[in-house]
Amino acid sequence: MTADLDPDEFRRAGYAFVDWVAEHRAALPGLPVVPPVRPGEVAAALSGPGAAFADGLLPEAPQPLATLLDEVERVVVPGSTHWQHPAFFGYFPANASLASVLGDLLSGGLGAQGMLWSTSPAATETEQVLLDGFARALGLGEAFTFPGGGGGVIQDSASSAALVALLAALQRADPRWQESGVDGRERVYVTAETHSSLTKAVRVAGMGARALRVVAAVPGTQAMSAAALADAVAADVAAGLRPVLVCATVGTTGTGAVDPVRDIAAVTAAHGAWLHVDAAWAGVAGLCPELRHVLDGAGLADSFCTDAHKWLLTAFDASLLWVRDAAALPAALSVTPEYLRNAASESGAVVDLRDWQVPLGRRFRALKLWAVVHAAGLEGLRAHLRGHVAAAVALAARVRAEPGVVLAAPPTLGLVCLRCVTADGGPDDAATRAVLERVNASGAAFVTHTVVDGRYVLRIAVGGVVTEAAHVEALWEQVRREAAAVRGPSTSSH
Amino acid sequence: MTADLDPDEFRRAGYAFVDWVAEHRAALPGLPVVPPVRPGEVAAALSGPGAAFADGLLPEAPQPLATLLDEVERVVVPGSTHWQHPAFFGYFPANASLASVLGDLLSGGLGAQGMLWSTSPAATETEQVLLDGFARALGLGEAFTFPGGGGGVIQDSASSAALVALLAALQRADPRWQESGVDGRERVYVTAETHSSLTKAVRVAGMGARALRVVAAVPGTQAMSAAALADAVAADVAAGLRPVLVCATVGTTGTGAVDPVRDIAAVTAAHGAWLHVDAAWAGVAGLCPELRHVLDGAGLADSFCTDAHKWLLTAFDASLLWVRDAAALPAALSVTPEYLRNAASESGAVVDLRDWQVPLGRRFRALKLWAVVHAAGLEGLRAHLRGHVAAAVALAARVRAEPGVVLAAPPTLGLVCLRCVTADGGPDDAATRAVLERVNASGAAFVTHTVVDGRYVLRIAVGGVVTEAAHVEALWEQVRREAAAVRGPSTSSH
Repeated sequence: MTADLDPDEFRRAGYAFVDWVAEHRAALPGLPVVPPVRPGEVAAALSGPGAAFADGLLPEAPQPLATLLDEVERVVVPGSTHWQHPAFFGYFPANASLASVLGDLLSGGLGAQGMLWSTSPAATETEQVLLDGFARALGLGEAFTFPGGGGGVIQDSASSAALVALLAALQRADPRWQESGVDGRERVYVTAETHSSLTKAVRVAGMGARALRVVAAVPGTQAMSAAALADAVAADVAAGLRPVLVCATVGTTGTGAVDPVRDIAAVTAAHGAWLHVDAAWAGVAGLCPELRHVLDGAGLADSFCTDAHKWLLTAFDASLLWVRDAAALPAALSVTPEYLRNAASESGAVVDLRDWQVPLGRRFRALKLWAVVHAAGLEGLRAHLRGHVAAAVALAARVRAEPGVVLAAPPTLGLVCLRCVTADGGPDDAATRAVLERVNASGAAFVTHTVVDGRYVLRIAVGGVVTEAAHVEALWEQVRREAAAVRGPSTSSH
Repeated sequence: MTADLDPDEFRRAGYAFVDWVAEHRAALPGLPVVPPVRPGEVAAALSGPGAAFADGLLPEAPQPLATLLDEVERVVVPGSTHWQHPAFFGYFPANASLASVLGDLLSGGLGAQGMLWSTSPAATETEQVLLDGFARALGLGEAFTFPGGGGGVIQDSASSAALVALLAALQRADPRWQESGVDGRERVYVTAETHSSLTKAVRVAGMGARALRVVAAVPGTQAMSAAALADAVAADVAAGLRPVLVCATVGTTGTGAVDPVRDIAAVTAAHGAWLHVDAAWAGVAGLCPELRHVLDGAGLADSFCTDAHKWLLTAFDASLLWVRDAAALPAALSVTPEYLRNAASESGAVVDLRDWQVPLGRRFRALKLWAVVHAAGLEGLRAHLRGHVAAAVALAARVRAEPGVVLAAPPTLGLVCLRCVTADGGPDDAATRAVLERVNASGAAFVTHTVVDGRYVLRIAVGGVVTEAAHVEALWEQVRREAAAVRGPSTSSH
C-alpha cells in the first residue's frame, strides 16, 4: 500500500543524491553564477513533449527516483542563480553549508511536527537549548535565555520575526487589541534604510502605511538619528498617537548602516515602546569579540533577530529571534482549540513554540543549526566570519586606492558599497550601472545594487560558504577592469 | 577559510546520514509512538556535563559530523513523538516520505533563494508548473492555473495560506487598506469547527476577535449552514459592516466535516466577499475521481488550499495555495525597495513569489513535491489515499458493529471519530478519555481527541506514509480491548 521508497531503496537513491550534491558543489566554480535564461524557458523545458510534466500534466506512472537527477541537471541547474557559487556577492549571502544540509536531512528523516512540546519534546527543547547557547555566545545577556525569563525561537525569516515582534508589541501596548484590533493610532518607527519587511509587517498587521514613521538619519550617514526619533515620538504622543514599536537595524540591507541601538533604547524606554533590533545579516558577527561592537545596546531590546541562514552557514530557513519576555509572543499569538489541548501544555511546565509564530506547524529546524555548530564549533564560525571581514577590508582598501571609483558608504563587516565617479569626483550612475551589468553578464560573478540619496550604488556582499579572499580579489580585478572600460580609453590609462 | 565540509567529507558523512535515516525508519515500528519523557529531560540531557551543550554553552571546537548521530540517538530519538511511526493516528498525518526527504536534500544542495524570479528562475517556474499540474489533477479548473489567469504557490502552512488569502481579500474589498489599514467594520465568517488558524489570521491582521462571525451549522452536523451564512452576511451588511471573507472548510480538523462550498459560493458571490476554501487535510483526495465529490464547488472559490505535507507524502512544509486572480496576492503584499528591483520583474513577464507570501525569502520547496510526484506518479498517490480510505471504511464498520462504542460523527475519508457510550447509549466522556489515555500510554499507537457539542471524542486519523490496513486493525483491537476494560467485567463479556 505504501507509495514511498522502502528503506533500502532510500539508501540506494540517497547515496546517488548525496553524490549529486557533492558533484554539484564541486562543479559550481565552473558554472555561470547567473544563468542566461529567459522568462518561461524553464517552464517550457519541464512541460514540453517527453518532459517531466508533458502537456502541463503530472505523470501517471511512478519512476525510479534517481532519474529525477537527470531532469534536475537538464533543466534546474541551467535555470538557477547559484547562491552557493563562490563568486556570488549579491544581496546578502544565503549560506547553505553542506553540514546544515545534512542536519536538515535528519529533520526530514525524523519527520517531526514541533507545533506543541508534546508533539515533539526533542524538537522543542533542542531549539531552546541551542537558542540559549547562541544568546550567550552572542553576548545578548542572560535575560534573553529561557532560564533568564526570555527565550529564543527559530522563525522562517527576519520578515516573520519582525511581524511577530510587532504583534507582541501591539498586545503589550493594549491587550484590547486581541478583541478589537488596531485602532489607527498606533505608530511604528523606522528609517529609509530599514528593511522593507517592516513596511510589509505594518501592512499585514492592518495598520496601513500611515502607521509608519520614517525617522531621519544622522546627517551624512544612513543611521537613525536618536534625537530625530525622540522628536517624532514626542510629537506623536502629543498628537494622541501611540508609539508601539521602534525597529533599530544593525546592518541595513542597502549599505550596512548600524543604527545607534543604545541611544534608541533610551527613547523607547522613556515611552514604553517595544524595541526590535533587526540584525538579520550583521548580528551573527557578535560571535567574534572584536566585532561585537556592532551589537552595542542590543541587550536593551525587547526583541532581537539575526539570521543563521544568511552568513552563519545554515540553510534557509533559520532566522533566530529572541525576546526578553517569554510570555510576550504567546500572549499575542496563542489560540487553543480543543484538539490542541494536552496535559503538558496545561501543566505550564513546557513551551509550545507554535505560540511564538504565525503558522501552527513547525519543522525540526534546530537540527540543521546544531549540525553547523557541531561541525564548525564556535572556532569555525568565527573563522568563517573573520575571513570575510578581512577580505572586505582588503577590498575597501583597493577601492580607496583606485581612481574613478569610491566607497559609497563606510564598509560594514563583509559589505562594501562603491560607485564610479566622473573626472570631477561626482557620482557617475550610468557608469556604476554599466559596471554591474557587465560583471553580471559575464557569469563570472554576481553583484547587486541599491540607491542611496538618489544615486546608484554597487554592493559587494562577501560571505558565501566557500567564498575566499581570492574570489574577492578576482571580483575586484573584474570591477576595476570594467570600470576602466566604461570610462573609455582616455581615462583608463591611469 | 571555509568552515564547512568539503564535497568529499560531505559524501562520506552524507552516506552515514542516509544510512541513519534508513535504519531509523526501519526501526520505527519497534519504538513507542510517544516517548515517556518529562518536561526538561531533553534539555538536561543536552546541557549536562560532557554533553553537546555542556553548561548551556555552544562547543568551541569542531567535531566530525558523523558523531552528531550519536547525540541524536542518545537524546533526540528517545525524546521524539514519532510522526512517521505506522501507528501514529493523531491530529492529521504529517507525511514525510523518504522520496520527499531526498527532494528536499536537492533543495539544500542547490541552496537557492527563490524570493524573486531572477534570484532563481528554476525555483519559481518549477513551482508554477507543478502547481498548475496539481490544479489540473485535482480538477480545480483551468482558472486556477497561471495560463488561466490564476496560479498556485507553496506556503509553509495552511495557516499562512489563510492569512494571505485574508490580506488579498482586504485589499480587494478596499484598496485604501494599504494606506489606512483596517477600519473595524470588516467581518470574516467561519464555523465552530473552522481551524483556529482563521482566528489567528484575523488577530494578526489587526481586525480583532470581534471581526469573526461564527456561523451556525446545519442542525445535526458540523457543516456550515449556507442559509445561516446568508442571514449573518445580510444582517452585517444592513448594520453597515463589510463581509470580507468566508472560510469554507473541506474536512474540519475536529471531525472532518465538509462545508457546502457550492451553496456558500452563492452567498459570497452575491455580496462580493472572498471565498477561501480550507481543504488543508482533505483536499488532496480530489486526486481520486471517486473521492472528488468532497471538492464540489471548490472551483468557485477565490482561493483554495490543501497541504501536501499532511496526507500527500511531502515533508513539511508544503501547503499548496491557489488563487483565481494571479494579481490578488501581489496587489496586497508587494513592497519593492530599491535593492530588489531588477529587469525581469519590471518586464512584467515573470512572477516573483515573494509577493505571494509574508516572508521575503523562500526555499526551493517544489523539489520535494516533484520528488514525490516523480517517485509515486499519480497512480501511487491515488493508491496511497485509497488504501487509507479503505482502512477507515473498514474501521468505521467495526465501530458500528461494536457494543459500547459509537461513531461520534460521520467518517470522512481517513478520519474516524468515535466515543464510548454507557449502557443506555449516552456519551461516556470519562470512558472515552480513559481509552485514549490507555492507548497512548501503551506506546503502541497514538490518537488524539476533540470535543463536539461539549462531549469528548476520540479521533483516529488514518494516513501515515507507512500505515497499512493491518496497523489500523491492530489499533482497533486495542481500542476495543481498552474500551472493554474501562467498562469493566460486567459489560465486557458481550
